[in-house]
Amino acid sequence: MSGMDGKRNLLITIRYCGTRYHGFQVQKNAVGVCQVFQDAVEKVLGERHDVKGCSRTDAGVHAGKYCLSMKIDKAIPCDKLVMALNAHLPGDMAVLDARDMPMDFHARYHCRGKEYVYRIHNSRVRDPFSPNLSYRLGYALDADMLHREAQAFVGTHDFAAFQSAGSDVEDTVRTVHSFSVTRQGEMVLLTVSGDGFLYNMVRIMVGTLVFIAMGRIAPGTIPAILESRDRANAGKTMPAHGLFLNDVYY
Amino acid sequence: MSGMDGKRNLLITIRYCGTRYHGFQVQKNAVGVCQVFQDAVEKVLGERHDVKGCSRTDAGVHAGKYCLSMKIDKAIPCDKLVMALNAHLPGDMAVLDARDMPMDFHARYHCRGKEYVYRIHNSRVRDPFSPNLSYRLGYALDADMLHREAQAFVGTHDFAAFQSAGSDVEDTVRTVHSFSVTRQGEMVLLTVSGDGFLYNMVRIMVGTLVFIAMGRIAPGTIPAILESRDRANAGKTMPAHGLFLNDVYY
Repeated sequence: MSGMDGKRNLLITIRYCGTRYHGFQVQKNAVGVCQVFQDAVEKVLGERHDVKGCSRTDAGVHAGKYCLSMKIDKAIPCDKLVMALNAHLPGDMAVLDARDMPMDFHARYHCRGKEYVYRIHNSRVRDPFSPNLSYRLGYALDADMLHREAQAFVGTHDFAAFQSAGSDVEDTVRTVHSFSVTRQGEMVLLTVSGDGFLYNMVRIMVGTLVFIAMGRIAPGTIPAILESRDRANAGKTMPAHGLFLNDVYY
Repeated sequence: MSGMDGKRNLLITIRYCGTRYHGFQVQKNAVGVCQVFQDAVEKVLGERHDVKGCSRTDAGVHAGKYCLSMKIDKAIPCDKLVMALNAHLPGDMAVLDARDMPMDFHARYHCRGKEYVYRIHNSRVRDPFSPNLSYRLGYALDADMLHREAQAFVGTHDFAAFQSAGSDVEDTVRTVHSFSVTRQGEMVLLTVSGDGFLYNMVRIMVGTLVFIAMGRIAPGTIPAILESRDRANAGKTMPAHGLFLNDVYY
């Protein structure tokens, strides 16, 4: 691990299909995105480097845009590095950009916000083309109604009710900047941006909206659920394969 | 094969991802869509039936809509048959509809026209999510220019120059009803409808437009290529995995 002594600090933007991976972080008994990326770096630069990811992501979650920082020594131009990494990465991962940053830049600590998209394939018939890129729900959704309900998430709130058990985060206050629900044909897209997200927070917010759509939670209840700080009052945690990390802000 | 004596004649509409299949037709040493569909029918009805497809399709070609006709004896309601078949088909195939038709209906002979879409992912970076659902081309395409050029295909022409060798079709005159080229972000969609298509005709028409875009064939040349009836003057046959049979008309 020579990364600690590098003379350059790179911000690298990648995109990946999460289906085959157990999240970004290095895993002991499963393949993580980070490990596969480090393998490609090792092939290109002849050295293995530490990588700082912008976020942990769960198994099966996808990334349209994921940022990481990495310290290296080699003087390779950024565009050449992008091409070389793409030549060595598997087909379900791609490097979009690489750029030099100040030496103290850190992909996670300097992240100012993120945008996620949850894709619901709202159809009674399965999608035979890319079943792992959306969650299929046969119950007909009213995207406009869900959009109105979702506005209760916008703002600075204590999201303790929208966090899965097992997290050791103490401060559960987060700011959601926007939450939109739109329909594109059979696809319902739930897009949420914020300064940070608790463990499974996006998937539980979407699950709560789905429960509202299906009549299992009453419309207008989201403020009371937030107030309760009780996970049991929110909806289910939606499956990982509909979730995309879509943008990362610095 | 009890299909010949059936008391009902069904028109069944399916959708499939062609990646795993060697086309629709039954193959000796490779898996065809038809065979997998017949397997599901056999599980549901307890009998294997002849199936008449609307079209041959090549290995790797997809279908957003594919029609077939099949004679059966059982009195099962159409909606129940759809659900039962979907429960027995693999995830990359789905039944959209089933309906009773006159006994002389034939999915291929009564087909009045078809629409195909060819998807070009116009990007220098690969698509890590669904690489088998489009053909990637790094060279920047001008969709408006290609749309104008493509209008030369519209109408009734002898398409002999746009047919792959190995076909034994004698009459190479076909009518193209419309041909549009549009851009949706990084995706360029080439949509063509017509009364019928020669072997590889859509893929060669698209390849000719791509050659025009890249300067390997001069703009305005399509009428002369049609006139020549010589395959050597047209562009390359585009790969199968960008092609979708999109609609079938009766």
